[in-house]
Amino acid sequence: MSARIELKEKVLAENDRLADDLRQEFRAAGIVALNLVSSPGSGKTSLLERTLKALNNRLRIALVAGDVQTENDARRLQAAGGKIVRSVITGGACHLDAKMITEAVSTIDLSVIDLLLIENVGNLVCPSSYDLGEDMKVVVISTTEGDDKPLKYPAMFRRSGAMVINKTDLLGLSDFELSKVITNARAINSALKMFQISCRTGDGLPEWYDWLAALVKNKKAET
Amino acid sequence: MSARIELKEKVLAENDRLADDLRQEFRAAGIVALNLVSSPGSGKTSLLERTLKALNNRLRIALVAGDVQTENDARRLQAAGGKIVRSVITGGACHLDAKMITEAVSTIDLSVIDLLLIENVGNLVCPSSYDLGEDMKVVVISTTEGDDKPLKYPAMFRRSGAMVINKTDLLGLSDFELSKVITNARAINSALKMFQISCRTGDGLPEWYDWLAALVKNKKAET
Repeated sequence: MSARIELKEKVLAENDRLADDLRQEFRAAGIVALNLVSSPGSGKTSLLERTLKALNNRLRIALVAGDVQTENDARRLQAAGGKIVRSVITGGACHLDAKMITEAVSTIDLSVIDLLLIENVGNLVCPSSYDLGEDMKVVVISTTEGDDKPLKYPAMFRRSGAMVINKTDLLGLSDFELSKVITNARAINSALKMFQISCRTGDGLPEWYDWLAALVKNKKAET
Repeated sequence: MSARIELKEKVLAENDRLADDLRQEFRAAGIVALNLVSSPGSGKTSLLERTLKALNNRLRIALVAGDVQTENDARRLQAAGGKIVRSVITGGACHLDAKMITEAVSTIDLSVIDLLLIENVGNLVCPSSYDLGEDMKVVVISTTEGDDKPLKYPAMFRRSGAMVINKTDLLGLSDFELSKVITNARAINSALKMFQISCRTGDGLPEWYDWLAALVKNKKAET
């Protein structure tokens, strides 16, 4: 085994250990934690803005927004009504890791929130390897990307529990075929929960909101 | 310095050494080498398909298509008329490196080509650090991504010589503002050569083709 692979495995093992601690902390607090992953530009921040506006009165939501540079996303989420928003600038790293989340979460009183939404760095590769202690990864893709993305980035779709297909208002304006992306995603992960939405028109979003609310309700029932 | 950073620097130094060898090889052969980088789904493969169809009779073009999994892109390029197409599957790595290109190029007779187009893995972070011996990185973005991408991924825009803005046919259907992305890109890299194109309608592509042809012509004049 090369020194490079050995070190990568060590880094991932250390990350997994911190992620397990986070998961226990989230479970003890009875909160649902989701890790949103996607390409740059698929609309994670827009989805979170809509989610905040729709659910801020029903759920107590905290957000951690990761970015390579800038606090643009965190600022957008605050403007959209986010009460507890933390920005993590990775400073060049192409993914969030459990250490960054541990630091961000240490500044949040978990006893007063129901739902933690983590917006990862826009990247379909590396974030798939880094467990952040989340209940589930949610992969967001948009209809303006290629419909073969699940086949080209299989690890991300395999390790996600849900897939949100955004920008359905632009269907028909490119070669993207909805049926193809669904077939390709199912081939990689047959259990993937799917949503078809447009953050621009609002289409399909109520189903997403209800699903989030149900996740929180089920978690409360468990604890 | 941590063991992790130390190893990363060693890996990058080794990559730079191999990239320098490649650059000399390309120069000796008198060919232009471009490294196309972007988010997943911005349209690199579509741009290369159009480029092949338009320039195959004017220039001798070789292509190296990198992907995490699948040979989809290489197959599309062959179908579009690519005569010399090599597929590099990174097997999980989120970027191409100079070693992969050295292996791919070793199977190509450089004396019979004018232009080498390398399609990197869809990722706006890591590919910015890996020199592939290219004359220039070309960053492709699309009007369906956010117009703040240059600010959020500054290294990529700083290290690129040209920026192609694709999907101009979809302008006005999202909040993306052309003037903003141009201002943001210029703030990071004032020397960036810019193209506004639509691979769907063909708008703006002749200028891109002419620029490629001029790069080749100038390279031949040098050697």
